[in-house]
Amino acid sequence: MSAQESDPVKLGWMVGSPPPAEKIIRFSDPDYFSFPKLRWTVCHFRQLMPTVGVSRGLGAPVPMERRIDDSIDQVIFTPLGGGRMSWAQSLAVNYTDGIVILHDGVIVYERYFGCLDDIGQHAAMSVTKSLIGLLGEMLVAEGTLDESAKVASIVPELAASAFGDATVRQVLEMTTGLRYSEDYADPDADVWRYGAAGNPLPKPDGYTGPRSYFEYLQTVVKEGEHGTAFGYKTINTDALGWMIARVTGKSVADLLSQRIWSRMGGEQDGYFTVDSIGTPYAGGGFNAGLRDMARIGQLMLDGGMVNGERLVPEAAIARIRAGGDKAAFEKAGYALLKGWSYRGMWWLSHNEHGVFMARGVHGQAIYVDPAARMVIARFASNPVASNAANDPTSLPAYDAVARHLMK
Amino acid sequence: MSAQESDPVKLGWMVGSPPPAEKIIRFSDPDYFSFPKLRWTVCHFRQLMPTVGVSRGLGAPVPMERRIDDSIDQVIFTPLGGGRMSWAQSLAVNYTDGIVILHDGVIVYERYFGCLDDIGQHAAMSVTKSLIGLLGEMLVAEGTLDESAKVASIVPELAASAFGDATVRQVLEMTTGLRYSEDYADPDADVWRYGAAGNPLPKPDGYTGPRSYFEYLQTVVKEGEHGTAFGYKTINTDALGWMIARVTGKSVADLLSQRIWSRMGGEQDGYFTVDSIGTPYAGGGFNAGLRDMARIGQLMLDGGMVNGERLVPEAAIARIRAGGDKAAFEKAGYALLKGWSYRGMWWLSHNEHGVFMARGVHGQAIYVDPAARMVIARFASNPVASNAANDPTSLPAYDAVARHLMK
Repeated sequence: MSAQESDPVKLGWMVGSPPPAEKIIRFSDPDYFSFPKLRWTVCHFRQLMPTVGVSRGLGAPVPMERRIDDSIDQVIFTPLGGGRMSWAQSLAVNYTDGIVILHDGVIVYERYFGCLDDIGQHAAMSVTKSLIGLLGEMLVAEGTLDESAKVASIVPELAASAFGDATVRQVLEMTTGLRYSEDYADPDADVWRYGAAGNPLPKPDGYTGPRSYFEYLQTVVKEGEHGTAFGYKTINTDALGWMIARVTGKSVADLLSQRIWSRMGGEQDGYFTVDSIGTPYAGGGFNAGLRDMARIGQLMLDGGMVNGERLVPEAAIARIRAGGDKAAFEKAGYALLKGWSYRGMWWLSHNEHGVFMARGVHGQAIYVDPAARMVIARFASNPVASNAANDPTSLPAYDAVARHLMK
Repeated sequence: MSAQESDPVKLGWMVGSPPPAEKIIRFSDPDYFSFPKLRWTVCHFRQLMPTVGVSRGLGAPVPMERRIDDSIDQVIFTPLGGGRMSWAQSLAVNYTDGIVILHDGVIVYERYFGCLDDIGQHAAMSVTKSLIGLLGEMLVAEGTLDESAKVASIVPELAASAFGDATVRQVLEMTTGLRYSEDYADPDADVWRYGAAGNPLPKPDGYTGPRSYFEYLQTVVKEGEHGTAFGYKTINTDALGWMIARVTGKSVADLLSQRIWSRMGGEQDGYFTVDSIGTPYAGGGFNAGLRDMARIGQLMLDGGMVNGERLVPEAAIARIRAGGDKAAFEKAGYALLKGWSYRGMWWLSHNEHGVFMARGVHGQAIYVDPAARMVIARFASNPVASNAANDPTSLPAYDAVARHLMK
């Protein structure tokens, strides 16, 4: 089904009082997050699951200036793999739900599709990791978190797990050696056992596994050595979230609100899904409005400053933008990301524009192009749970728009 | 346990990463909403259950002016039943979580206790009914809902139930004749079966009852005649919510946001808890910030105007304030509410100040005193689920403060 055919508004999920039985989506349905239902679910996680708020505070939002440039729709690019496509065409090809482009902090383009509008909220999925990584690097820059410390020295409960003898920095760069498979196509992958542990519903009869994110993390065993190869594993972010909570005494939801979300002049509260003991899902549970995600990109571009106020130490952003170990990253074998690295849970391209990104599994992105002074925030619900399905029609499209804006 | 002894912050519910096992509160715990846990739960329903947001919109809040009058703490009143108490003393006696007093629209008093602060949100419980009643009276005043129409003509699914031959007005005034017991002290009361129907968790094995609010409403049988006696039964509000959804094509959450919550210059989004098919709990599921609840009281006092803009037809507010059938109300036998009536799901005192109220079961209230130009919004978590436990130390206290402000 194309983006148009699978449009959740057109399909009428959860419309009516009550909705027709075949249009109801429940969290307990095995397919609530399968295509095409997932295209509704990405905008409505809070209607399915318990959540914790990330307050924007009580003050007035700081509106972003707008100078819309409709000619962006006609920007032409060459998808990875070849061909020719316009920016406007790409949006449906990769199932975009919303996209906003900032140039020098000014909104030059903004579109919504599917379940999303500018007052709505959307699952950020793994873009969440970059927010948690930013908090982690902030605490490192401030001296609250020692990047050379062993995880076990901060969270003793993890001492016997694979995390125990990893350093904070190895967690931040995901160079830990962990036995953990995140292949969504494999029904036996660890990611599903992790999901069962974090599921906030009462456990089924006979369930004997871990009962929360924290319990799961304690069961992770080592595979290989720490510090040698990049391995993109969500559980690193939840281990980081645990360390952040331990050293600050605040959950990542509260810390994100207090340090960033309530101070950036944003428009909407965000929220995290939580497990059965109220722990926010640091690895992928954040949901927010699109323009507020763009504000995060602008904060990164501006070295931690927002509206003339410093929210994040410049050193924390500089550490991320300096990039991680490219040799370690290369070992992970990302065919479409040659020469990239990963640092502070952000993806660094090391290309001539110094592009870096936050990336979510269904095409969510914060894309920062420092040379072009451009930020793109995108929400999407690509049926394929892999950025390999989004990159061919998004990375070169973003680059083409950057060059268009630099003219 | 006193208010101080049962302070949820002092008791440390859900604090720590993870919280100690004995401090964890789960929605599936049988006592998650029993005292003293309920004093934490009233501020954290979204962490336990799925919810739907009531957006405040994206604009700037309109701050309320402040001229704090600390002498209110020393106002002395006579509790119903006798004695002598200061306003300040009353707040702990009736387990207040937050209270704000407006005089001529200006904040003259504001205090928070327990789980609440000014950036937090609290369960409104049955104060929710008054918001839904206001939407209902608004639709009646606008001609969208015919108050003389039979319920079955609007929601045919209710034709065979007790609601079928009741009029919209009888639902709005709760003079329907329904077999439905709402005695929280009785473990066999219908209210628990209603809760089981609306519970968003998957139904337990062997469960054969209704599986949503709407399914339950269709099972309600008649007891007595419609239109003769007031009977305070939550299911009336959910039947009204169903009619509102049917005639407007919007859920009560969306309608409340679009017509009121996003237009009143409020500070925070609110939210409703939802059942397993996403229906907002119109009878008691709303949660919001305290000052925003006070804004609703001010809207009622000002005849539907907010910040110079008309949000609700004057006729809708006038209909509510005119009051309902006092003889029908008398039959319900409220010892502490002699001479009161119920209209549009608000409680009307018919006293010399023309006081009217929204009332929640653990002491939540919006209290409007037109003669004193005073609005009080209160959130509370009284261990006793009955306003008979709150009225003795709140109704005369509110009246004493009104007289203090009128000096």
